[in-house]
Amino acid sequence: MGDRAVFTFSPGPAIMPNSVLEQLAESIIDYNGTGISIAEVSHRSREYTGSDSTRGIFPHTRTAFKELLNVPDNYEIIFIGGGASSEFGNIVRNLVPKGGLAQYINTGNWSQQAYSTAKVFEDGGLVQRIESIGGIEEIDDLKTLRQIPPGEINPDAAFVHITPNETIGGIQYQTFPNTGKVPLVADMSSEIFTREFGINDFGAVYACAQKNFGLPNLSVVIIRKDLLGDVLPGTIPVEDYKTLAEKDSAINTPPVVEIYTAGLIAGYIKEQGGVEEMARQADERSGLVYRAIDKSNGFYISPVQPGVRSKLNIPFLLKDKSLEDTFKQEAKNEGLLELGGHRSVGGLRASMYVGMQIKGAEMLAHFMQYFAVKHG
Amino acid sequence: MGDRAVFTFSPGPAIMPNSVLEQLAESIIDYNGTGISIAEVSHRSREYTGSDSTRGIFPHTRTAFKELLNVPDNYEIIFIGGGASSEFGNIVRNLVPKGGLAQYINTGNWSQQAYSTAKVFEDGGLVQRIESIGGIEEIDDLKTLRQIPPGEINPDAAFVHITPNETIGGIQYQTFPNTGKVPLVADMSSEIFTREFGINDFGAVYACAQKNFGLPNLSVVIIRKDLLGDVLPGTIPVEDYKTLAEKDSAINTPPVVEIYTAGLIAGYIKEQGGVEEMARQADERSGLVYRAIDKSNGFYISPVQPGVRSKLNIPFLLKDKSLEDTFKQEAKNEGLLELGGHRSVGGLRASMYVGMQIKGAEMLAHFMQYFAVKHG
Repeated sequence: MGDRAVFTFSPGPAIMPNSVLEQLAESIIDYNGTGISIAEVSHRSREYTGSDSTRGIFPHTRTAFKELLNVPDNYEIIFIGGGASSEFGNIVRNLVPKGGLAQYINTGNWSQQAYSTAKVFEDGGLVQRIESIGGIEEIDDLKTLRQIPPGEINPDAAFVHITPNETIGGIQYQTFPNTGKVPLVADMSSEIFTREFGINDFGAVYACAQKNFGLPNLSVVIIRKDLLGDVLPGTIPVEDYKTLAEKDSAINTPPVVEIYTAGLIAGYIKEQGGVEEMARQADERSGLVYRAIDKSNGFYISPVQPGVRSKLNIPFLLKDKSLEDTFKQEAKNEGLLELGGHRSVGGLRASMYVGMQIKGAEMLAHFMQYFAVKHG
Repeated sequence: MGDRAVFTFSPGPAIMPNSVLEQLAESIIDYNGTGISIAEVSHRSREYTGSDSTRGIFPHTRTAFKELLNVPDNYEIIFIGGGASSEFGNIVRNLVPKGGLAQYINTGNWSQQAYSTAKVFEDGGLVQRIESIGGIEEIDDLKTLRQIPPGEINPDAAFVHITPNETIGGIQYQTFPNTGKVPLVADMSSEIFTREFGINDFGAVYACAQKNFGLPNLSVVIIRKDLLGDVLPGTIPVEDYKTLAEKDSAINTPPVVEIYTAGLIAGYIKEQGGVEEMARQADERSGLVYRAIDKSNGFYISPVQPGVRSKLNIPFLLKDKSLEDTFKQEAKNEGLLELGGHRSVGGLRASMYVGMQIKGAEMLAHFMQYFAVKHG
């Protein structure tokens, strides 16, 4: 594969490191000299669970996550099939007691979706109340975002939910709100492994894999053990975090290939220098593109004010909107793919997560400068 | 890869055709000349959804399933992340109206698990009743199995659920029960594509992928359109079959790699000659192993009577139980893996699904004969 000729700026499934793809492709043919494919490895085999003499795919991935994110022993790390949209439901099923309530802060599309999914349980009479404690009307409403949490925290709330990085709006919390004794729960799908944070500040953090740690159809949930317990009526075993934790995330056949791939990505992050280095890379990549926007004399426009700009997802507009399709086509010709904005907002967007080499961001920034000269 | 040296008889994740693994490994490096990995393909891209000029991964797989299984237009084909254990819950959420009831026939471990998962909704007060209408006490209780359904069908039931093939007990329905106007729902995880059946006899059929159509962490649900409608309280969008059907199984990021791989397996089945040929292969494979058991003069013992023997999962015992570990070790030395019985019953078991070449069954049968001579 060598050096990459094509970079995809998709918000997910996202670009992955070449070395990981190469190792995955090899393992699809023969996993670790076993003569069988990683796709055929039994979740009850020593290869997966480990033994006295072998590490095992599952403990390898879980330990790597624990180390990279400095997760203390009073937290469980659970892997579960599906994306964050499934966890929008499962966090309520597992954390909000019957008759309980939870609060949501709305900063954009994904926090809104987490909220509306949770609302299903209120509408169904399974919990007492799911409430929004404010958010922002406009994605550049700096004042509100800096005052987060804007609403009052109810001390009886099971948790306060945030989405620290919004992939469509392109805004990101610079610091996390202090919710006191009420556990903070965060959907970190788009920023896990790209910023340093203390898990102790959170009751639970969850994230899907296809942005920062591999293949679609896997999520990780990191949760404080004392929050685990009874589940809401209508919660089936494979949705029960406590049982999942007890059974090493393998109540039924787990996502073996996705968990293996997550372990490869974790290895890549370690090689690079850990989360601190990944945060630096996110700074550098996003800095390159924001500078291309800000120094374009208005050819490119960022709809987000500097203080809350995302380091992962950069939405931008062209002053001359009629050039959008040309931009996407010429970028594609140069091997820079998936630069269209989200269907709901249009425009353009560059998403750059763990797997995006600095070179990809450099190529995009230079292409943008060239395009501005050519069409400006 | 060429000819296979190692065969895994795991009940799932199961052996896959070499040609499929090779194509998957290639696509992990470069999907179809796009320069990006199948792991990076966006579910909103033309590569996935298709366009006027390109077929698209999703419509390709769905159409192949429709053709292979002769699914008429009044059925939906839905792909969904996770295994059959998730669908144990979702079929109740989607098919049993509030205040309704469903009936289950118990023929072994998996039908029992489907039943006990459904029972969660009764216990939670979300449905009126989940009832068992009988089953079998012993896996060789032929009389009961032939009288299926043993209990009385309630005409008000939303469905009657069966598990036509039990992977642990190793028994299989030879014909399906007639439930009249009450829809029959079947978990076909272990037998889909290995037997011919008319989908019109079922209200819904579901199956996980890691036995007969690829990677773990994907299921297919084929369901009569008129059964779709309201869902139970506490059902979130990604669990709602009707919404999934309307959105081409992509409410959120779908299992792109698994759906792609399912399409590759469907292509393999077509090349082989379709489901009719796969059924013939299941006959041939299981016949080879059952003959090795039956002609061993009691060295090997099948706990299942001939009339209900599974063509997919063959549990067997050694007359001299103390040789079990030797059997597994010597088989492993010959490249025949995962021949241990399920943890709950012990003994030995050979599972052979769509991806098992006839050669694998031949090798196992000959090894069994050799081992019986050597140790008999």
